[in-house]
This record gives sequence, C-alpha cells and structure tokens, in this order.
Amino acid sequence: MLLCDIGNTSYHFLDGEFLDGEDDFKKDVESFNPSEIEKKVYYISVNHKISRKLSNLKNWINLEPYVEREKYYKTMGIDRIVALEMIENGIIIDAGSAITVDVKKNGVFEGGFIYPGVRFMQQTYENISQALTYSFNFELNLDKMPKNSQDAISYGFLGTLYREVMQHNLPVILTGGDAKLLAKIFPNAKINETLLFDAMKKIIKEAQLC
Amino acid sequence: MLLCDIGNTSYHFLDGEFLDGEDDFKKDVESFNPSEIEKKVYYISVNHKISRKLSNLKNWINLEPYVEREKYYKTMGIDRIVALEMIENGIIIDAGSAITVDVKKNGVFEGGFIYPGVRFMQQTYENISQALTYSFNFELNLDKMPKNSQDAISYGFLGTLYREVMQHNLPVILTGGDAKLLAKIFPNAKINETLLFDAMKKIIKEAQLC
Repeated sequence: MLLCDIGNTSYHFLDGEFLDGEDDFKKDVESFNPSEIEKKVYYISVNHKISRKLSNLKNWINLEPYVEREKYYKTMGIDRIVALEMIENGIIIDAGSAITVDVKKNGVFEGGFIYPGVRFMQQTYENISQALTYSFNFELNLDKMPKNSQDAISYGFLGTLYREVMQHNLPVILTGGDAKLLAKIFPNAKINETLLFDAMKKIIKEAQLC
Repeated sequence: MLLCDIGNTSYHFLDGEFLDGEDDFKKDVESFNPSEIEKKVYYISVNHKISRKLSNLKNWINLEPYVEREKYYKTMGIDRIVALEMIENGIIIDAGSAITVDVKKNGVFEGGFIYPGVRFMQQTYENISQALTYSFNFELNLDKMPKNSQDAISYGFLGTLYREVMQHNLPVILTGGDAKLLAKIFPNAKINETLLFDAMKKIIKEAQLC
C-alpha cells in the first residue's frame, strides 16, 4: 500500500512496506505516469487535472469522500482540511508551491490564507527586476528593518508572514517540503513533515478501508 | 522641461509646462525610445539598462549625483531615497512593479523592505495553480481570517503587508501607480501620487539646476 499527497507540482508518496520503516519519494506532476503503479494507492489531491486522470485508475483511491468537508469552505484544498483534522489548537503552515496558513482554535476552524511558496516568490522578485535577484536570507533578524537588498526582499517575503502568524499567539506546526527552511524564522514551531500522511492513515483507519 | 521617474516597467513623465497646470504620462520601458524627446528631462532611474542608454543623451540629466546617498545603503533604489528625503517621520509605501516600504523616524532612515507589486503578485498565484486565479479583493476584512479562496489569496498578499506596516505605528504615505488601490487597505494613509516629482523639484531647486 502507498499513500500519496498530490500538490500543484509533485506527487508525494509514502511507502509503508519497507522492513526498516517507511520511505517517502516525489514524482513530478508533469512527467510521472500514475498508471505505472500497480499497488493500491490512497491519495488526496489539490491538482484537479491529475484528479481527473486518477478517477479512471482502479487502484488509486481518493480519500476525499471520507473527509467531513462541511466544517470548511467549498473550494478549500483537501490537504489543508485533512491537516487541520489532526489538531485542536494551533496554526498549520504547509510550505509547498504555495504556503497555506490555517488557524484552528478549540477545535474550530477560524480561517486561513494562501501565500506564495519559496520558489515561486524567489521567481517573482527576479521577474520584477534583475536588481532583485537574490536568494532569500532565512537567517535575517526580523526585529530590525533591513538595510541591504538581500534582506529587503527576504524581509518582504518572510517578515510580513512572520508578523501575521505570530500575532495569533498559537502553537505553530510546520509541514510541507520547505518546513525546515521556514523553521529558521519560526524557531519555536513544531516540524511535522508527515502530518498529511498521518492524517491519511487516520482517515483510512476510521473509515476501515484496510 | 520634463521630469521623469524610471522604474522597472515604465517611464513616468511629468510635464510642467501646461497652461492649466501639470500633466503626467507613462511610456513602456521596452518600446519607448528616449531619444525621441528633445526637451530637457531631469530624471531618476532604478532601471540600470535604461540608465546606461540615457547616459549618451545630452538632454537627459540624471539627478542621482545631487542626492546624498550616504545616509542610505549602497544598492538602495534612488526612488526610495528621494522619497524619504521629503519626510521626517513616517512609512512611505511606493506601490509599483515592486512595493517598497521604508521607515523614517525623527529624520533617520530605519530601514525598509521590498514586496512584490499587485500585478506581479497576481501573476504569481496564477503560476502556482489555476485554482488560485482570482483577482485580489481590496475590500476584504483584515480583522477576520478568510474562509473563501479569493479572500485567502487577497489576505496572503494584503493582510501580511498590512500587519507589518501597522505595527510601526507611524503615519503612512502612499505613492506609486497602485497608491489608490492600496489606500483601500490603509484608509488612514495619505496619498501623494506626485511625491517623487515633488522630491525631484526640490533637488533641482536646491542644486540650482534651473
């Protein structure tokens, strides 16, 4: 059995059948052919194009019908919903192509927002001007206003996000491919890179799918 | 005489010789040929490619040598510097291709950051996913976390910027092509669309250039 979280740019698999534990790997959404896989795959997907493709493959089982969507809003990404189902209080930051930031208080979803991910934001600054082509400085001091170009764009990306997240005064949970990078600006956050897979296992168990 | 502020995407001119006041107009940096203009033009430029081109044209006079750059940092855009020279206390938000945010307290530059502009940020969300292709809602309530996709990306762009700016507790001055749009989220800000031209006039006067 495989678990798979499908985002805008990649399939993220977790293979639970290794003798020495679990193994995760990624495949590009553009080049990977899902019919190559013969094992049973339980998946969630925010990628509508891929979802349509998978609905024709019998061994790919969409977990979305087993999730209570009603507590959330209609067009909200299923990844955000299943992650939120794992906590009672906190802010979940899922840092992938997009960075989603969702707030839950006493078991109630308070709302959330979507910020561009590291790679896309880097590209944005480059597109605006050659003069803004710097890699982000994740070590920058967010308590001081920047006085050099690299920190000026780093603060633009990270400082604004930091300020917004911190004002909620809730525990921060980081997940997604860039969780470790963002942990540099949220030193007290808890990193849980397998949050979505943990959530998927919980759904499978509760729905008695296997 | 013309004044011109050259950014990453356009030449912004102010023509002061109209009988009924002044008139401003824009030209695209890609298609406009500056040698078409025969009048004297006083300019500032953050566009290095265009600056090199203009250094060969005798009627284009760069105002940068007349500005005290020492109080700022080396690679800081000249537009940010001349704008800051106009105030003693406040935050200047210049909303163009990039949104620059600069803080000055009691005549001292405290630092500043660079955020992507409206058009570029919109494009970024579109590039991440078709599912994030919404125009920004500038009327959204920034005191509540969003519960729909349009507000989720609008809050990602505007809410984070708002929170960062407001925590400084200083008067906000808005300038640049998108000043009026941003005024919707900064209702107490002062809009000054001619701030850069006012600054250029001051430099010309003080340096007795005409």
